[in-house]
Amino acid sequence: MMGSVLPPCVDDAPQPAIAPAARALTEAMAAIYGRGWCDGTGGNFSCVLQQEPLLLLMAPSGVHKGAVAPEALIEVDGQGTVVRGSGKASAETALHLAIVKQCQAGAVLHTHSQAGTLLSQWGLAQGHLELRDLEMLKGLSGITTHACSVQLPVLANDQNLQRLSSLAAPLLPQAPQGLLIAGHGLYAWGDTLPNAMRHLEILEFLLEQHWRQLLLRAVAPPPCT
Amino acid sequence: MMGSVLPPCVDDAPQPAIAPAARALTEAMAAIYGRGWCDGTGGNFSCVLQQEPLLLLMAPSGVHKGAVAPEALIEVDGQGTVVRGSGKASAETALHLAIVKQCQAGAVLHTHSQAGTLLSQWGLAQGHLELRDLEMLKGLSGITTHACSVQLPVLANDQNLQRLSSLAAPLLPQAPQGLLIAGHGLYAWGDTLPNAMRHLEILEFLLEQHWRQLLLRAVAPPPCT
Amino acid sequence: MMGSVLPPCVDDAPQPAIAPAARALTEAMAAIYGRGWCDGTGGNFSCVLQQEPLLLLMAPSGVHKGAVAPEALIEVDGQGTVVRGSGKASAETALHLAIVKQCQAGAVLHTHSQAGTLLSQWGLAQGHLELRDLEMLKGLSGITTHACSVQLPVLANDQNLQRLSSLAAPLLPQAPQGLLIAGHGLYAWGDTLPNAMRHLEILEFLLEQHWRQLLLRAVAPPPCT
Amino acid sequence: MMGSVLPPCVDDAPQPAIAPAARALTEAMAAIYGRGWCDGTGGNFSCVLQQEPLLLLMAPSGVHKGAVAPEALIEVDGQGTVVRGSGKASAETALHLAIVKQCQAGAVLHTHSQAGTLLSQWGLAQGHLELRDLEMLKGLSGITTHACSVQLPVLANDQNLQRLSSLAAPLLPQAPQGLLIAGHGLYAWGDTLPNAMRHLEILEFLLEQHWRQLLLRAVAPPPCT
Repeated sequence: MMGSVLPPCVDDAPQPAIAPAARALTEAMAAIYGRGWCDGTGGNFSCVLQQEPLLLLMAPSGVHKGAVAPEALIEVDGQGTVVRGSGKASAETALHLAIVKQCQAGAVLHTHSQAGTLLSQWGLAQGHLELRDLEMLKGLSGITTHACSVQLPVLANDQNLQRLSSLAAPLLPQAPQGLLIAGHGLYAWGDTLPNAMRHLEILEFLLEQHWRQLLLRAVAPPPCT
Repeated sequence: MMGSVLPPCVDDAPQPAIAPAARALTEAMAAIYGRGWCDGTGGNFSCVLQQEPLLLLMAPSGVHKGAVAPEALIEVDGQGTVVRGSGKASAETALHLAIVKQCQAGAVLHTHSQAGTLLSQWGLAQGHLELRDLEMLKGLSGITTHACSVQLPVLANDQNLQRLSSLAAPLLPQAPQGLLIAGHGLYAWGDTLPNAMRHLEILEFLLEQHWRQLLLRAVAPPPCT
Repeated sequence: MMGSVLPPCVDDAPQPAIAPAARALTEAMAAIYGRGWCDGTGGNFSCVLQQEPLLLLMAPSGVHKGAVAPEALIEVDGQGTVVRGSGKASAETALHLAIVKQCQAGAVLHTHSQAGTLLSQWGLAQGHLELRDLEMLKGLSGITTHACSVQLPVLANDQNLQRLSSLAAPLLPQAPQGLLIAGHGLYAWGDTLPNAMRHLEILEFLLEQHWRQLLLRAVAPPPCT
Repeated sequence: MMGSVLPPCVDDAPQPAIAPAARALTEAMAAIYGRGWCDGTGGNFSCVLQQEPLLLLMAPSGVHKGAVAPEALIEVDGQGTVVRGSGKASAETALHLAIVKQCQAGAVLHTHSQAGTLLSQWGLAQGHLELRDLEMLKGLSGITTHACSVQLPVLANDQNLQRLSSLAAPLLPQAPQGLLIAGHGLYAWGDTLPNAMRHLEILEFLLEQHWRQLLLRAVAPPPCT
């Protein structure tokens, strides 16, 4: 059975060819690298090319994500097997697939930012990071007021990504379009690549804001009236 | 009655066409995004196309402000109704209109920066942030010496923008070309778009400086002679 | 008497025309703006077009230094009078001229950076900032080892630039290619524009480093063996 | 005896000409400058053109590393003598050569970043900086799990680079593709230029992360469950 071809990677009309999705994903990766969120060969990025059967477009493991050519991307099936292109799929593909399947995500963006790494270790003992009372939260799908509190899950890091994905699974339905892996970084997602990018920018903003809040409140509490 | 066409958005000679103003506003938005001041779909930006009757050019709600095409901008009348272009006007249009009317502003720039968000929460209890003794203050229209003290108003955030605008109204005449909404961000304005940009850069500089001052003075007070 | 034409603004062979110096200065200003060191209309920048009689090329007062066209620069004589171009000379021209005359500078770059502003206020009571034991100091002309201590003068800000220049004068001969004005920013200079740019980058690096040192040492002193 | 021509500077097939290696090295230097890691004339960068006899391609001493033309690079032999091109070899060539010979490095990148300078002084008394439990460590060749601890050596700075290189020599075999010189900066290396760049990005990330960890943990320890 041939699955229906649905490319949620791009916002435009359905694209039968892979080229626009590949170009959109490599441009997204270059922009993310430009912000310092995937130095070295850190991070990984995928988008759904087809839902039935599932087909993910992603960067191969171990390459620099800031300068990948569209032709160098690989296609991976729902079991994480490379079905097109040369290169190995990252071990982290397991978590990308779990997010795509459980959250109906069309794109998953995994970054290694300074604030994400810092707060993922800081919040591990509590198991989550609380983000609240900020207008920026409204940039996350489904949130309509700043007067809310969001719990970003924090999981311990694990080189066994199947085990890590199993632990992540029960947290995904309530996760605010993202989760943190301790000492590792952020996963953000969305139903399309542009929406995943928006969620990534929002969550990275909130993480950077959170650690500045922690510093400032600790050393210089706000004055009273 | 046809209103007179006065495009205060650009510094040059009067422009009968909308194109130069639209290009100037989208370039300003792209520059603001490049500085990290409107991540996600945060922020909004407008300039006056015509004073009588009032006509505002602005970005539609919910789009990424860093990559708006000039043709995608909308025109909004003095009641906040979209009169040209497709897309919804942001709820924040109410505050843009209040500022334009009360401050004779030709452009209003609303950002979500790290320092603006941080200090808007920090200064809420006091209701203002005091900025003083800095040469950069002279970049704000009407200030001619560093030896002055400026109070940047801080208002509580509110999803009801009509109510928020009513609370802002009495503060606008004394506001130093800007005000903060707590947990939300900065509004800056000016009689033309270039002057609003200058005020935005100045106020964002002063906010970034203010939180560094708070940190440094708290942990390492200056040495005496 | 016609003075000899010596353009120390550029490193290359003597340039009879003003164009290369104007282009070099506007490119330097755009690069400085790109680093966030002259937001708003902050900062000013000059280079010597001719020594005898003195002729300075500089940006007019009140313009945005990041986007000045070479043709928009003005020429100023040794008394600070505009002798060519349209626009007003900044009041700060007095200090530019004092530095050029006393330090044989070929270019003077005056910035408003975060670290410069912060530490200029922090160091005012002592009257200087001590920079020491850093390899980067060797980028300043005349310094050949990191094992040295340099005192960067800090003067109180003053809207009377003649008075400020008189107070600066006795400090200039010992100043390490730069000085700070409190709550205002840094002046850096060099015998040519490229050397002034090098000194500016070095001093801005050292200022940013200094405030990070102050923060880190105050809250987390180095571990002993 | 003519040595074999092996250009480990570039990942591609062997290049008989110097041009691709020179272009790759100048592009790397421009990118490093763009990140603020070699301001002024700070830093130095080399790659191996030929192993037997050893031939290093590098920037001459005292130039701005962000804007070197490929033709302006010099070639240096295994004793640090310039054998091609005009300009002086930096005194730091001695340490580049020691690293190339002892670590089989194909490229050596020496930066002056804020975090590297700060932590090199902070860690000097202990003689090393401990980096641990971070996924980013896996970007360093030979490391396969985040659950590890890496000791980045820290040496005292010395203007006598022969003496400094002798002190570095016994530390190089265990060094994690890099070492710090106190108050000076980072040396990072790799078997090829792209791998050296990857190690540089990883180590700079880890240094920036380390000082943020020190700040945050000191003033706002993580909450317990």
